[in-house]
Amino acid sequence: MRKLRMGMIGGGTGSFIGDVHRKAASIDGMIELVCGAFSSTAEKSINSGKNLFLAEDRCYANYEEMILKEKELPEDVRMDFVAIVTPNHMHFPPAKMALENGFNVICDKPVTLSLEEALALKKVIDASGKTFALTHNYTGNPMVKQAKAMVAHGDLGKIRKIQVQYLQGWLATSIEKTDQKQAAWRVDPKKSGIGGALGDIGTHAENLTEYITGLHIEELAADLGVFGEGRVLDDDGNVLIRMNNGAKGTLSISQIAVGEENNLAIKVYGEKGSLEWHQENPNQLITRWLDEPVKIYTPNGNGLYPEALEVSRIPAGHPEGYLEAFATIYKNFANHLLAINNGETIDTPDYPTIEDGIRGMQFIYAAVESNNKNASWTKLA
Amino acid sequence: MRKLRMGMIGGGTGSFIGDVHRKAASIDGMIELVCGAFSSTAEKSINSGKNLFLAEDRCYANYEEMILKEKELPEDVRMDFVAIVTPNHMHFPPAKMALENGFNVICDKPVTLSLEEALALKKVIDASGKTFALTHNYTGNPMVKQAKAMVAHGDLGKIRKIQVQYLQGWLATSIEKTDQKQAAWRVDPKKSGIGGALGDIGTHAENLTEYITGLHIEELAADLGVFGEGRVLDDDGNVLIRMNNGAKGTLSISQIAVGEENNLAIKVYGEKGSLEWHQENPNQLITRWLDEPVKIYTPNGNGLYPEALEVSRIPAGHPEGYLEAFATIYKNFANHLLAINNGETIDTPDYPTIEDGIRGMQFIYAAVESNNKNASWTKLA
Amino acid sequence: MRKLRMGMIGGGTGSFIGDVHRKAASIDGMIELVCGAFSSTAEKSINSGKNLFLAEDRCYANYEEMILKEKELPEDVRMDFVAIVTPNHMHFPPAKMALENGFNVICDKPVTLSLEEALALKKVIDASGKTFALTHNYTGNPMVKQAKAMVAHGDLGKIRKIQVQYLQGWLATSIEKTDQKQAAWRVDPKKSGIGGALGDIGTHAENLTEYITGLHIEELAADLGVFGEGRVLDDDGNVLIRMNNGAKGTLSISQIAVGEENNLAIKVYGEKGSLEWHQENPNQLITRWLDEPVKIYTPNGNGLYPEALEVSRIPAGHPEGYLEAFATIYKNFANHLLAINNGETIDTPDYPTIEDGIRGMQFIYAAVESNNKNASWTKLA
Amino acid sequence: MRKLRMGMIGGGTGSFIGDVHRKAASIDGMIELVCGAFSSTAEKSINSGKNLFLAEDRCYANYEEMILKEKELPEDVRMDFVAIVTPNHMHFPPAKMALENGFNVICDKPVTLSLEEALALKKVIDASGKTFALTHNYTGNPMVKQAKAMVAHGDLGKIRKIQVQYLQGWLATSIEKTDQKQAAWRVDPKKSGIGGALGDIGTHAENLTEYITGLHIEELAADLGVFGEGRVLDDDGNVLIRMNNGAKGTLSISQIAVGEENNLAIKVYGEKGSLEWHQENPNQLITRWLDEPVKIYTPNGNGLYPEALEVSRIPAGHPEGYLEAFATIYKNFANHLLAINNGETIDTPDYPTIEDGIRGMQFIYAAVESNNKNASWTKLA
Repeated sequence: MRKLRMGMIGGGTGSFIGDVHRKAASIDGMIELVCGAFSSTAEKSINSGKNLFLAEDRCYANYEEMILKEKELPEDVRMDFVAIVTPNHMHFPPAKMALENGFNVICDKPVTLSLEEALALKKVIDASGKTFALTHNYTGNPMVKQAKAMVAHGDLGKIRKIQVQYLQGWLATSIEKTDQKQAAWRVDPKKSGIGGALGDIGTHAENLTEYITGLHIEELAADLGVFGEGRVLDDDGNVLIRMNNGAKGTLSISQIAVGEENNLAIKVYGEKGSLEWHQENPNQLITRWLDEPVKIYTPNGNGLYPEALEVSRIPAGHPEGYLEAFATIYKNFANHLLAINNGETIDTPDYPTIEDGIRGMQFIYAAVESNNKNASWTKLA
Repeated sequence: MRKLRMGMIGGGTGSFIGDVHRKAASIDGMIELVCGAFSSTAEKSINSGKNLFLAEDRCYANYEEMILKEKELPEDVRMDFVAIVTPNHMHFPPAKMALENGFNVICDKPVTLSLEEALALKKVIDASGKTFALTHNYTGNPMVKQAKAMVAHGDLGKIRKIQVQYLQGWLATSIEKTDQKQAAWRVDPKKSGIGGALGDIGTHAENLTEYITGLHIEELAADLGVFGEGRVLDDDGNVLIRMNNGAKGTLSISQIAVGEENNLAIKVYGEKGSLEWHQENPNQLITRWLDEPVKIYTPNGNGLYPEALEVSRIPAGHPEGYLEAFATIYKNFANHLLAINNGETIDTPDYPTIEDGIRGMQFIYAAVESNNKNASWTKLA
Repeated sequence: MRKLRMGMIGGGTGSFIGDVHRKAASIDGMIELVCGAFSSTAEKSINSGKNLFLAEDRCYANYEEMILKEKELPEDVRMDFVAIVTPNHMHFPPAKMALENGFNVICDKPVTLSLEEALALKKVIDASGKTFALTHNYTGNPMVKQAKAMVAHGDLGKIRKIQVQYLQGWLATSIEKTDQKQAAWRVDPKKSGIGGALGDIGTHAENLTEYITGLHIEELAADLGVFGEGRVLDDDGNVLIRMNNGAKGTLSISQIAVGEENNLAIKVYGEKGSLEWHQENPNQLITRWLDEPVKIYTPNGNGLYPEALEVSRIPAGHPEGYLEAFATIYKNFANHLLAINNGETIDTPDYPTIEDGIRGMQFIYAAVESNNKNASWTKLA
Repeated sequence: MRKLRMGMIGGGTGSFIGDVHRKAASIDGMIELVCGAFSSTAEKSINSGKNLFLAEDRCYANYEEMILKEKELPEDVRMDFVAIVTPNHMHFPPAKMALENGFNVICDKPVTLSLEEALALKKVIDASGKTFALTHNYTGNPMVKQAKAMVAHGDLGKIRKIQVQYLQGWLATSIEKTDQKQAAWRVDPKKSGIGGALGDIGTHAENLTEYITGLHIEELAADLGVFGEGRVLDDDGNVLIRMNNGAKGTLSISQIAVGEENNLAIKVYGEKGSLEWHQENPNQLITRWLDEPVKIYTPNGNGLYPEALEVSRIPAGHPEGYLEAFATIYKNFANHLLAINNGETIDTPDYPTIEDGIRGMQFIYAAVESNNKNASWTKLA
């Protein structure tokens, strides 16, 4: 047994999400970063790599070079998979090339720039026989696992109502006009796609909802907002949702909600019980019942399902955070790759896949279409 | 100066809201209950009155009798105003008769059974020259006053986004089939009107939103639910709202949200700041800012506007609750009556009026109409 | 049946606690204020009384006059009991005189200026055959009742550890040097007694601890602080406590804890479970268990003991506050008086009595004595 | 530049704290685990090492072998430092041997079995010229850094009062009688030292207090409890503390507080402001002020000092947890080693050192001595 070797595309010095991926990949000690095409030039890429203690000859000028050169390396040296942490428009090309050259891929969300690309990517994945994971990181939280397990075991009864929101305030002013790189590409349709906040955070809300409830959003009515001066993409949205079992709800997103940091939260109401989870206080799952007092579950605390216990790394009361949840995606992905390497089979690997990616794109497209028709009900393709 | 004398219509032994009105009217020592038509028979009414230490001859068989007999009493004995605490269908008839016979009226919400009645009532009020108050009690909370003042002073900047919800779970099962009187009339269109949860709690959410923001809901798109077996009225609703200044938001209500007790909450996001208030934890106003840390205001605490200080009865840290907020409506109503008695004028009495009542009915009607057209945008008449 | 008639001693215009007593006495509609000796002169007293809608001839110049004149009034007119809301040094004299003249008494805490007075008062009460209540108001909270019931039923097992605190910040600076009347008498040993914060809030902490646990503080070790410039009485204290069953704990009080409003809180740990209650968020009782998730109880919510349900006035989720808890003391006192009037017997009236008052004084005296001996263990006499 | 190479002593499969150290060391990508003496036999050690992807020949039978063999390896292969994660009695021997053989050391707390060992270790460190760090991990939290900075900048004014607690419930029953290894050594004086909870968690409370306030505990009065059946060491403690500036406070610890998970919390009150931090909800720092509303700070949020910003890894609202704080100790230790390797100097490396370790032992000794004298005041040697 050996650690898995990771190559990274994007994530140069100063990057937010690239650094997150590296830390998440490191926590469980199963993965080592061996190479990267971190930036748009060889020089920048090498500088980024140096800070990461990488050998200069494994810091590539671009992803094409990385994929081709790594492929030529001996099997016990070359990377096992690539992590794609670039803006949305740069997901599909490197993912396709990596897969077609025999590398597994883990990719940030939303999966691609367009729905067409997402559908095309699925074909590439299927043809390649390689493994693909999408980092809908919030599903890695122990209390999200507990929530999903409680719904799956029928503890809440039939689901009737859902409230989900993802609220941020960092784009409340048009900081993209300053030198804020994170903002700049997110408000640019060429790099972000047809959704702004929809793609950046709406897909997380959609994914979390479907993950916990095991249901699908069947149709939606979206009233999007473009509040930031000079923007063309949505930076806010209020959405009615109808699930495939008859449940109804609201999905609210914003990047102009002043003072909100990263307020992803969900409430699910069934016939017998309900649950509430807040990403900013992730180590609590609040549950409510017809005839019993409120019960609060905690990671590694009393009364959990095995699905939640499995992903808790440390004893109860030692808070796990964003990086640990993110790391769980990497860990499950890595365990799957190791199993494949060992000739073993895992029935249902527990990490988001291209199917989640496609759902996310369908969500974005349906919301934009609905909004264009003044919030008419629109089905997810 | 003397205490004001109150006569009550409805609110017999076992009543929820009648008892609330009596306690709220008592707290500030300005009002005394002198008579009532508490129940549907003279006997029941007298029994209720006894428990309230009333003289038997001031416990009437019905509201008509009460109004007519009280009118005959000497001026220094007869009631000053009636409090109407009956189900919705029994608001308009006694209000009309009381006003036309020279009595002021304070009435529970929603104001009437139908929009038509509400409009008719306004004419009666105007013709009578008497005073009418509507108990949208939540606007009496000190932190709601602070919220309204902060918006009015421009602290938050232009309002962009609103999230308001009122969630209860007590109708999650069809308890109206048992001997639950509170539930029974609320699910009966003859007594409740065309809205179920819409009228009972939706109007509170609507009123709170417009009160705090100083804005009006211009149009809405409502997706109502009827989850309880055998019901015909909505017991759940998800509503998109658009305000008259361009702000957008969601309004979510439910009486089938298992385990929720009385979860009225609002979040308002402006260009410069935002605020958040929860009725179940009413002594905190959470505010967020572009460049400053989160600030939390408390009744009689640091940094409040006079509007909030005025309605806080006790020192900071001594929690005020539901009854105190309710009492503030009564107090302001009583102060207005006392001023009138003294020949004084109050420019803008700070309690909800028939205008709020009409808005509430317009909200119900627009929501039902929108829902009937599959959540099409519908203007508030 | 008729309302009980209350006369008040102290509590003139601008008073904090007098107003609280009046509101608390009013809420449940069982008591009417009929007379008062509100201030130090007849003129001031009359002015205070006018604002309370009292007849001028029932506004007395001093308590002696009130007691003597009310005694002369016809039985169906004169007051039933007096409420004493003066500073500590003015508790004993009017209480003694009222009792000896046949009036029941309800009195603010601490019960008297000195332990000697408290013991003397007990003799007066016993000799008078009249009823005496002490307003340790926090014991009136529904969740405190639930806490007491849970301990009494053995749900927590044998109690092992207690943490109790009462933290305020309003005396962080020496505001008694300004014209702050509330502060002035509290830092004056002639009016306050030998304890400063000890008497004002420490007795609440002591009383709450003994009320909930059913245990007694056997001995304590107190390290008091005098931080405010120019003060002679404690404005802060850290105390180790040992209970009569072997449990140990800490009791921490302060009036110089900057920014704390009225932070009375208690945690009780038993062999099987534990509980936590915060006065500033009084409508939650947090409980923790060996093998079960955290459970949170709420007034009129699921899973409560009858003792808690009995004192909840309004449906779950409608927050009760400081005044309602205070009112429960008045309500239970009033019910006891009414029962006596009806010739009925109540085995254990549920309100604090002279015994609680004596315990409080013993607590103050033990703490001061311990502190004088450098925090040596000192038994409560 | 290269990653630092870590060898681990203790922390075999199933270990709690060894796994924590490995994860913490991994997060920031500066350290790689290269060898270990994980268990008491070579076989077990090799099995543990395999799961960690280590070469078999770097998995040693015991720490002596590891130190001697690693010393013989080429400089570019051998470990840079050892991490000691064994029970307390096995801290001093390997630390001494490692230092004397030229290896830097990072060690779990409390630093040694006895105060004598701690003082001896300081001499060894000084003589060795090597670097020694102690993992008082909670000081790595961003909001703890902010708290320390606020006190240091005088924002709170002179400190007057402190409340600190560390409450756990996992030893509420005598689980050491079952096969619970974590419990077994902690209740055994031969392995744990003269303090039970005092050493395990009390030292964290002591260290956090002194770290944030910049003050020292001058003397204390400790009332320890031994509640678990069959135990000889304290599993609970209530302690009065007096700081070297005149501030007073309480320090409460417990491992029998049923249902508490890992409730380390501190409140610090100064003349101008106060702060409150809870380890279980670590991403909030609550502050209170004489004249301003409550302000809540968050990692990477508004209004922070550079000291807090420096240690926040991810954007505001993405919760950091226990492992990230722990990792900050490793990161700062690693940066110090790298600086030394580069011939650079760091004035005040920001991680706990042997001085903190000695303070911790002095705290344990003073508390035990005080308790033996019935909670008499005892100075920290």
